[in-house]
Amino acid sequence: MSTIIREVHAMQEASRAERQAGRRIAVVPTMGALHEGHLSLVRLARTHAERVITTIFVNPTQFAPGEDLERYPRPFERDVERATTAGTDFIFAPPVEELYPAGFATSVAVEGLTRVLEGAARPTHFRGVTTIVAKLFLCTLPDVAVFGQKDGQQVAVIRRMAADLNFPVRIVVGPTVREADGLAMSSRNVYLSARERSEAPVLYRALRQAEEAILNREKNAVAIVELMKRLIGENSSGLIDYCSLADAGTLVEQEQLKPGSMVMLSLAVRFGSTRLIDNIVVEVPKPNS
Amino acid sequence: MSTIIREVHAMQEASRAERQAGRRIAVVPTMGALHEGHLSLVRLARTHAERVITTIFVNPTQFAPGEDLERYPRPFERDVERATTAGTDFIFAPPVEELYPAGFATSVAVEGLTRVLEGAARPTHFRGVTTIVAKLFLCTLPDVAVFGQKDGQQVAVIRRMAADLNFPVRIVVGPTVREADGLAMSSRNVYLSARERSEAPVLYRALRQAEEAILNREKNAVAIVELMKRLIGENSSGLIDYCSLADAGTLVEQEQLKPGSMVMLSLAVRFGSTRLIDNIVVEVPKPNS
Repeated sequence: MSTIIREVHAMQEASRAERQAGRRIAVVPTMGALHEGHLSLVRLARTHAERVITTIFVNPTQFAPGEDLERYPRPFERDVERATTAGTDFIFAPPVEELYPAGFATSVAVEGLTRVLEGAARPTHFRGVTTIVAKLFLCTLPDVAVFGQKDGQQVAVIRRMAADLNFPVRIVVGPTVREADGLAMSSRNVYLSARERSEAPVLYRALRQAEEAILNREKNAVAIVELMKRLIGENSSGLIDYCSLADAGTLVEQEQLKPGSMVMLSLAVRFGSTRLIDNIVVEVPKPNS
Repeated sequence: MSTIIREVHAMQEASRAERQAGRRIAVVPTMGALHEGHLSLVRLARTHAERVITTIFVNPTQFAPGEDLERYPRPFERDVERATTAGTDFIFAPPVEELYPAGFATSVAVEGLTRVLEGAARPTHFRGVTTIVAKLFLCTLPDVAVFGQKDGQQVAVIRRMAADLNFPVRIVVGPTVREADGLAMSSRNVYLSARERSEAPVLYRALRQAEEAILNREKNAVAIVELMKRLIGENSSGLIDYCSLADAGTLVEQEQLKPGSMVMLSLAVRFGSTRLIDNIVVEVPKPNS
């Protein structure tokens, strides 16, 4: 079974000892409720390091008032078992007051990238994410950190933060793991009613149809976004927060696609009180390819 | 002579190699123009670690438009010589674009503590300081970081930032080094005219008279601040930005002094276009001591 660590100081000591012994460390930051998507990241982490730390911390500062902080699932014992089986050596699972003691007053923020998409819908979300990720990097002192492409904007924001602050940590991104019908795995899928669950795969279908349009040389990004919206509107009860076709690096929304550029198709849709996100990255075909 | 390093990656490699060899590292962050105050911090750093890194970087983001960024003194070769003589092993002196490349978008900020005193006069200053200090910690990966009490509020802000983000770095503070007449050493003293220079020691005299009042059991903080202002006003052409008597930890301005508490007397005064700061920390006497 993995070693469970609750205190920052103990985690730093354990990491130092591993480094001192010449072993590389990979960290997989999670909020628990581990599903196959997380476990694929743990397995990916193992290929990069001799020791894997999985962090389990439901970070309150990335939830806005009225979001699902309280009801967020916390099946801790099952998480420990799954993380261990997938190859975790240490579980870092501090209580909230260990990471945010009285008087806590510091934040890490990224401008620009964080204003659009998820950041537009959830204005304080990414500041919470970048602050906790910086803290978790400093608690676990890793060589490599592994994140999932499922949170596509988060990946871009964390890459920016890690580079800007000179974290000596390599960011590795694992592909989105999906159910058989295409729905991206998410800890929030458990909130869906049977009907919502049956409709939710339309998100991935919409992304794939948009990808097909791009590969068929449609260059009008606005038309491609409309295509996604129409498909979701006609085939589900979901309320669209956004559908986007943006540059994959800068997240700037596109109008006319540039051949050879990498773009991210992404969306956020509400089913009842459950908000689902998904994305895929596509290379716009070059003229003579 | 110290080894001069210009690149982040090379600095991290050098630090890693020292650590791997079991040597502790102390960093002394400076903006160069090294005087006896800085050198005392280098000597203090040596007592805490086998390797001392002095960073020399005039950080543009902690200067506001109209401040003295362009004319800030940069006597690099003399700095290297002095730092080396005082016990520096590595000088980390990156060019601006190495630390702030195109697209840089991240900041580290501390709330509360940074709104008062220097932060009230210079609203973006401390965000620049905390961001660069976080970056320099991650570039140099030290065990210990040494700062001067001269920048008293900066010390409180950096302690908060380092604790909040879980930096595994011990913050050590060296006492303010003064000229024979009491003027705190500062790279900005060179800007003073002969007359301003002759008046400037009144800052330290005011701090010491206020300290004496506290030790003589004056409890009215407002009266003590007035005492400092009067002394400076009557004995110099300096324009007072602020005189303060605040809790030394929280920097909350005091009205009635609490016996046994630690307070910081501090001030900022402009002589022509030169702004000088100084402070001392005092323990308020207990009733029966």
